[in-house]
Amino acid sequence: MKVTVNRKAHFNAAHRLYNSDWTDARNATVFGKCANPNYHGHNYELIVSVKGEINPETGFVMDMKILKALIETEIEAEFDHKNLNVEVSEFKTLNPTAENISVVIWNKLRPNIDKNLELSITLYETPRNFVTYTGD
Amino acid sequence: MKVTVNRKAHFNAAHRLYNSDWTDARNATVFGKCANPNYHGHNYELIVSVKGEINPETGFVMDMKILKALIETEIEAEFDHKNLNVEVSEFKTLNPTAENISVVIWNKLRPNIDKNLELSITLYETPRNFVTYTGD
Amino acid sequence: MKVTVNRKAHFNAAHRLYNSDWTDARNATVFGKCANPNYHGHNYELIVSVKGEINPETGFVMDMKILKALIETEIEAEFDHKNLNVEVSEFKTLNPTAENISVVIWNKLRPNIDKNLELSITLYETPRNFVTYTGD
Amino acid sequence: MKVTVNRKAHFNAAHRLYNSDWTDARNATVFGKCANPNYHGHNYELIVSVKGEINPETGFVMDMKILKALIETEIEAEFDHKNLNVEVSEFKTLNPTAENISVVIWNKLRPNIDKNLELSITLYETPRNFVTYTGD
Amino acid sequence: MKVTVNRKAHFNAAHRLYNSDWTDARNATVFGKCANPNYHGHNYELIVSVKGEINPETGFVMDMKILKALIETEIEAEFDHKNLNVEVSEFKTLNPTAENISVVIWNKLRPNIDKNLELSITLYETPRNFVTYTGD
Amino acid sequence: MKVTVNRKAHFNAAHRLYNSDWTDARNATVFGKCANPNYHGHNYELIVSVKGEINPETGFVMDMKILKALIETEIEAEFDHKNLNVEVSEFKTLNPTAENISVVIWNKLRPNIDKNLELSITLYETPRNFVTYTGD
Repeated sequence: MKVTVNRKAHFNAAHRLYNSDWTDARNATVFGKCANPNYHGHNYELIVSVKGEINPETGFVMDMKILKALIETEIEAEFDHKNLNVEVSEFKTLNPTAENISVVIWNKLRPNIDKNLELSITLYETPRNFVTYTGD
Repeated sequence: MKVTVNRKAHFNAAHRLYNSDWTDARNATVFGKCANPNYHGHNYELIVSVKGEINPETGFVMDMKILKALIETEIEAEFDHKNLNVEVSEFKTLNPTAENISVVIWNKLRPNIDKNLELSITLYETPRNFVTYTGD
Repeated sequence: MKVTVNRKAHFNAAHRLYNSDWTDARNATVFGKCANPNYHGHNYELIVSVKGEINPETGFVMDMKILKALIETEIEAEFDHKNLNVEVSEFKTLNPTAENISVVIWNKLRPNIDKNLELSITLYETPRNFVTYTGD
Repeated sequence: MKVTVNRKAHFNAAHRLYNSDWTDARNATVFGKCANPNYHGHNYELIVSVKGEINPETGFVMDMKILKALIETEIEAEFDHKNLNVEVSEFKTLNPTAENISVVIWNKLRPNIDKNLELSITLYETPRNFVTYTGD
Repeated sequence: MKVTVNRKAHFNAAHRLYNSDWTDARNATVFGKCANPNYHGHNYELIVSVKGEINPETGFVMDMKILKALIETEIEAEFDHKNLNVEVSEFKTLNPTAENISVVIWNKLRPNIDKNLELSITLYETPRNFVTYTGD
Repeated sequence: MKVTVNRKAHFNAAHRLYNSDWTDARNATVFGKCANPNYHGHNYELIVSVKGEINPETGFVMDMKILKALIETEIEAEFDHKNLNVEVSEFKTLNPTAENISVVIWNKLRPNIDKNLELSITLYETPRNFVTYTGD
């Protein structure tokens, strides 16, 4: 009897899309206004999903209080009110697209969650653009 | 050509998290303010998802009017404006976590839905905490 | 140049609608399933609105960090994961309808907010039922 | 490392549910008020989901600007502010249920998206009724 | 102590924007794709707001069960799954813009609500376009 | 018969809160993480509200197509995917708090809207923080 529990969190950050191997002109062509060197930003909405067996004693797959605290420590403390390109080490050499951010978040959370639990990340960059990464 | 049809419903209920095999102190430690013996409550948002072949005559996987009525009879009439611990028989011996409520709802709906259709339940306890159960 | 700043918060609570001067039968007639003596509950969404002049030094009408902390101390700590009828003193003799809860919240916040600022409360009992109180 | 990128779009359209092989009486019995011969309508919310490998140069699974433009050309230009039964050729002989609309949208988008990418469609007919089609 | 109570409802309808005193060409110029003679449609979201004194016996400004039933009888039964231009008498000579629909709804509800209560209507035609009418 | 018409729009921008008359230490004390010199950002949701008489010929207070185009030209083209502090002239000497941004938007739109129409601005900085400015 496997259930998926989902916890929503959020962080506000600045970023720009940029490939440092390319000229500025090519960055502007490919990424358009998202390449603005002065940055823009988003209210990122994050859903962390954990799937596993229900513990018969607690009725929990994973204690939401623990998951909430983990997201605060590992993700919000690192990303909230930050400039992703400048202040988050993973994005010094990786373009902070929604796709790449979701993979980085998955990689940061995975070691902190029981191996018997499956982990999946959904990240809203705007209410109209969002991505999902399941580790596959 | 399989399509999933989803119907949203809702019910407002009181509950507390509580394991009757434990001392009050342990309940308070594990469940925190959710163990309050005077209860608290939620606006539960429920999504019932049914997957199957489209009937070529109707264009329906399942008539939403029938699914809506089924949710009203089986779930809303039993859960809405109720105290889950006190008034819903399944939770007299089962802790009414979101995980367990989703399994109970799945079990109540499954016998009423065509065997050729797959059933999945998503339950929002709050806008930030929700669970999914697919019967696996 | 007066601007209204609004801060959303939330609390989950149990309640029942009940007039202690009435018989149980009359309570049941008037309040229907909301009078259930075993309680039901809601995810209350609260919007606190404060209107006033922009401080030219900060650009703030009121520092949102201070307003957020005030709502946590005065309202969430008192109401969240509580049984309003049993555990919140104001509702021992006052029926905890959305209307009355909004007035109680206004009265609790008013003394803590600068007299030059206007205060208004919006309270969602469900996504379909909500009330507004401006102190008039 | 496969990620799903999702883009929301919308269109407003009139339709009625109707099987031309049936009598009007049977249409009224099966489809109820949805069979109204004068039509009714909806704000359809559409989510187009595309799953595949992240391109290491761009950090994109698929450029959202291209996906947005494709939805505008293939779907919004055909469906928005239209009468689905009268003006969209696919529904001259196919009942425009949410299920069938999602399949038609999938079929219209599939040839325009790289074969290495998986495509899935979610369509909200109302905030309470929605469907998903993955091409299986 | 005046509180505003708000109740959300909804109806799905077809309409077109059209001034019968104008040529088709002028209708097309002014109303664009909204003038499509085959109609389009919307999920209208309606908020009915009623302001007045709290009744000290009930704690209600107006019983939400009564307001909900009134909206069902007066508005939803008349508008839901209808073609506004063809089937709602008020719009035979009045263009069913969101502005005019809100005035018609206000006029239909006003005689059914206590004179001591103020009435206001908010109508969402789409999530991005909405109107408010207070009777002034 | 005055009706308010409301149009939602949005823009994504980077900003920081900063008073150039203060030391960095005082900026950090007052504005906390919002003062981060590397910037952070938001998905701003904007509601522009225009109140006036319904034109009896069109049924419009103001043509939403014109209002939408005006917001695109005056606000979105100036603010979207920009760094407010660096690239928007008004904020070179004015702290880009939500309060101040709402006043700047009101001032930019007011000359472009008929004098007989009242204008009001609501700006969401996050789903939990928003402001309203009516020009008073």
